[in-house]
Amino acid sequence: MQKIVSLCKRRGFVFQSSEIYGGLKSAYDYGPMGVELKRNIIHEWWRAMVHSREDIVGLDASIMMHPEVWRASGHLASFSDPLVDCKVCGERFRADKAPRAEPGSEAIITLSDKGKAKLALEKVAKTIGVELAREGKTLRGAHASDRGYVCSNCGSPFLSEERQFNMMFRTNLGPVDPIGRAVEEVMALIERSPAASPETAAELKTLLARAVTDSAVYLRPETAQAMFVNFMNIVQSNQMSVPFGIAQTGKSFRNEITVEHFIFRSCEFEQMEMEYFVPPGEGPKWMEYWKSERVRWWKAIGLRPENLRLRAHEPDELAHYSDGCYDVEYKFPWGWDELEGIASRTDYDLTAHTKGSGKKLSYFDPEATDPETGKKGWRYVPHVVEPAAGATRGMLAVLCDAFDDSEPSEEGKPQRIVLRLRPRIAPIKCAVLPLVKKDGMPEAGRKIVEEFLAAGINSSYDEQHAIGKRYARHDEVGTPYCLTVDGQTKEDGTVTIRDRDTRAQQRIPVKAALEVVIEALRKG
Amino acid sequence: MQKIVSLCKRRGFVFQSSEIYGGLKSAYDYGPMGVELKRNIIHEWWRAMVHSREDIVGLDASIMMHPEVWRASGHLASFSDPLVDCKVCGERFRADKAPRAEPGSEAIITLSDKGKAKLALEKVAKTIGVELAREGKTLRGAHASDRGYVCSNCGSPFLSEERQFNMMFRTNLGPVDPIGRAVEEVMALIERSPAASPETAAELKTLLARAVTDSAVYLRPETAQAMFVNFMNIVQSNQMSVPFGIAQTGKSFRNEITVEHFIFRSCEFEQMEMEYFVPPGEGPKWMEYWKSERVRWWKAIGLRPENLRLRAHEPDELAHYSDGCYDVEYKFPWGWDELEGIASRTDYDLTAHTKGSGKKLSYFDPEATDPETGKKGWRYVPHVVEPAAGATRGMLAVLCDAFDDSEPSEEGKPQRIVLRLRPRIAPIKCAVLPLVKKDGMPEAGRKIVEEFLAAGINSSYDEQHAIGKRYARHDEVGTPYCLTVDGQTKEDGTVTIRDRDTRAQQRIPVKAALEVVIEALRKG
Repeated sequence: MQKIVSLCKRRGFVFQSSEIYGGLKSAYDYGPMGVELKRNIIHEWWRAMVHSREDIVGLDASIMMHPEVWRASGHLASFSDPLVDCKVCGERFRADKAPRAEPGSEAIITLSDKGKAKLALEKVAKTIGVELAREGKTLRGAHASDRGYVCSNCGSPFLSEERQFNMMFRTNLGPVDPIGRAVEEVMALIERSPAASPETAAELKTLLARAVTDSAVYLRPETAQAMFVNFMNIVQSNQMSVPFGIAQTGKSFRNEITVEHFIFRSCEFEQMEMEYFVPPGEGPKWMEYWKSERVRWWKAIGLRPENLRLRAHEPDELAHYSDGCYDVEYKFPWGWDELEGIASRTDYDLTAHTKGSGKKLSYFDPEATDPETGKKGWRYVPHVVEPAAGATRGMLAVLCDAFDDSEPSEEGKPQRIVLRLRPRIAPIKCAVLPLVKKDGMPEAGRKIVEEFLAAGINSSYDEQHAIGKRYARHDEVGTPYCLTVDGQTKEDGTVTIRDRDTRAQQRIPVKAALEVVIEALRKG
Repeated sequence: MQKIVSLCKRRGFVFQSSEIYGGLKSAYDYGPMGVELKRNIIHEWWRAMVHSREDIVGLDASIMMHPEVWRASGHLASFSDPLVDCKVCGERFRADKAPRAEPGSEAIITLSDKGKAKLALEKVAKTIGVELAREGKTLRGAHASDRGYVCSNCGSPFLSEERQFNMMFRTNLGPVDPIGRAVEEVMALIERSPAASPETAAELKTLLARAVTDSAVYLRPETAQAMFVNFMNIVQSNQMSVPFGIAQTGKSFRNEITVEHFIFRSCEFEQMEMEYFVPPGEGPKWMEYWKSERVRWWKAIGLRPENLRLRAHEPDELAHYSDGCYDVEYKFPWGWDELEGIASRTDYDLTAHTKGSGKKLSYFDPEATDPETGKKGWRYVPHVVEPAAGATRGMLAVLCDAFDDSEPSEEGKPQRIVLRLRPRIAPIKCAVLPLVKKDGMPEAGRKIVEEFLAAGINSSYDEQHAIGKRYARHDEVGTPYCLTVDGQTKEDGTVTIRDRDTRAQQRIPVKAALEVVIEALRKG
């Protein structure tokens, strides 16, 4: 994994966001190579989902939606993590990700140094009333409580109550200054009840929360809700007949407490989601269809079959409304983890938004027979099967799968690094390299690049450093073909084409080289 | 304009966001046709800016950046609108957009009805101490103050002080609950000073602001800063030599008080920005280059030359660091307005981030002569020329320019509506229409669509309604070609190809039709 992170920075795939300012927690910027790779993956998804199918159309909805959307969907009430504060070290952590500990077993508390341990010893004695024994930087004598977990930082069992922390990012829309308003309201409260009592605190909390949330909007934590909210608009404007799907790619935001594994889990990420609307009762059938279709797609963009698997959710993992869910998992360097979830969501979402908005979200099929009346013409709330994939983590999987440092280097160094990307998703399809920067080779090279670009093939001209170094550079960014322009090119219009994977070189006419690249792109 | 808004909803270009919940202020969703049109415009920009040039590379940075980025760039201090509240009607408005009024001239206050006017009369007398005269729903006798403007809603001159309202959206990152923290701090304050005095209010405001802003992050109000912050990473990872550019497309967010003209000005919008780094002194030269280059591009995607102009900023419009700025303006239905700004930003941005971060952002040219030492090898802070275009408003301009309802309808109705979009940006390039839904025509039609898709051409199969209605539908979404499959198709492999603009029809082999479409796309 460290090798991939290092390659990503060195070659301009992924940088830490705001790096010169020390970085922002788990935010990443996609550099010149990364932006092309991510675009290509998303483009392949769009081509497979939208362009090459009659039954799916696209959507690009705004990131800020009406707050009632999130009330109806359930995200305002329950899209949250259980958070706990440690009373010893002050760490705030997720209860469900904390280290497990048998109730009653000894909980050894480890601080970062002796001084901190001394202070912690006094603090525990004073505020909790428990006397512990200190050995260097560890404290002994505490015991795990019935909760079954301890602090993820120091191991202490002295913890605050769990409280629910909503993962949606909140902001305020419109010309209201929430702080100014909060001050006015708090001042009025102080006049009414100047003493600081628990009642005042409760009232204060309510009015502060209201002052801030009255103009609150949220950054979407998923793109999916926009497809449900726009259901009728899309059926009507595009004459869609069930079964049909609405597809969307775009950024979503989650205030994740635990961010991990580079770009795998970050607060800002990109999704590729599709909601497929089917007649009631047909969810399971379409679930089977989309399971195989989606695994096929991940293989088509280059992931090895042995690194992919489908995992059925256990009954206790399923949302209450779902009648089945599968994860497409990839074998990342840290183990199997989710690339995409395929969920059968029944009619939960359209029904929830019908309730929330008072607008009927349903579909009328004039040809179908209504099972209740037995007559022709059936109005129903469609059921939904949702393949929801991560574009950001998809890109990480592609990088992991394509990374190969097992071959010896061409320059006699211990190994060469090559990204064995499929041509269609490779950032650059073809690099044109003049052997030297003179004798008309740069001009000939640039002319070839123009020919390739005119054919819609993203190609690049590269004349810096020795030819071997340039080959190595293009191996590292996954460029499938390098064309070398030399003295003979001017004479007979031929170039040397080098294959990234085999390193085989062959002298052919420029026209034939173009055909080779086009054919490789046609195959995928 | 109303015709375009109506077409956008009817044909699935643009919907109001969260429409079933009453909509969200100025937020829009791009439907099946809109998402394709917007993608195509952005793709053409990327092709022109990144893929077909050696000197520009792409970037896709995160929307949330380190808050210090916005401090260094000046956005935290000065990216704000002057807001004022009306003491009569309560309207909050932008001082710089309010109706002008000569100081001392009569300011007639107009309420929405008599009852409101009566109440306002009393309020003014009581709280401001001015006696006015009422005539129906208007109040007379007030006079404009030295500020030179009145309320944009009722015309009153009784206004609060102007205060600066920052246009960046603020949210909180990380496991901190700003409300919980604010309550703790306010409680402590109440204990210290239980009386509600102006001093308490000031202290309260400071601590509430701090409680909320300590974990604050902002949604970027422009994509540009990411290019400056990533300058060194990109120079190093991609061996860029000045002059070179970094291009980015993506969403930006501004808490605009005045939103207007459909998707023209909204709080969430999409940009296409490029920062071009040049040696000191070469700003003016590159300014000329990008002025002509960008106008050429807008023409190439289909805007008529007579609807485009370049407007130089007046000296008082220029930012203090800028030594020149031009707007590319389009003649919208409401008048000339900005499509793109092209600014010469000197070395302001890189210098500001060098100061802000303590990291040197500069460039070393080993071949250039240092003007100070006269020796070979020059390290300098590059100057920047920035063409910053709006993708969202670019799409609106394209729709306005392409909209034509001047021709009589084919069905004898008063007019036909056609979007005369250039083929490359049209959502669908070619529609395949079986004359009837039988006799093998659907099968033949679908086979043709597959052929077109395999050639990378976004095509669509459409069998619903009569053929004339289908032509009209595809005229309205700007599909350049319709192919009609009839009985003869099966016999000799020919179809009728219909040209959107001329409505001319011609019988040709499918292969020839494919050539026609490919040739049209090649031309643009």
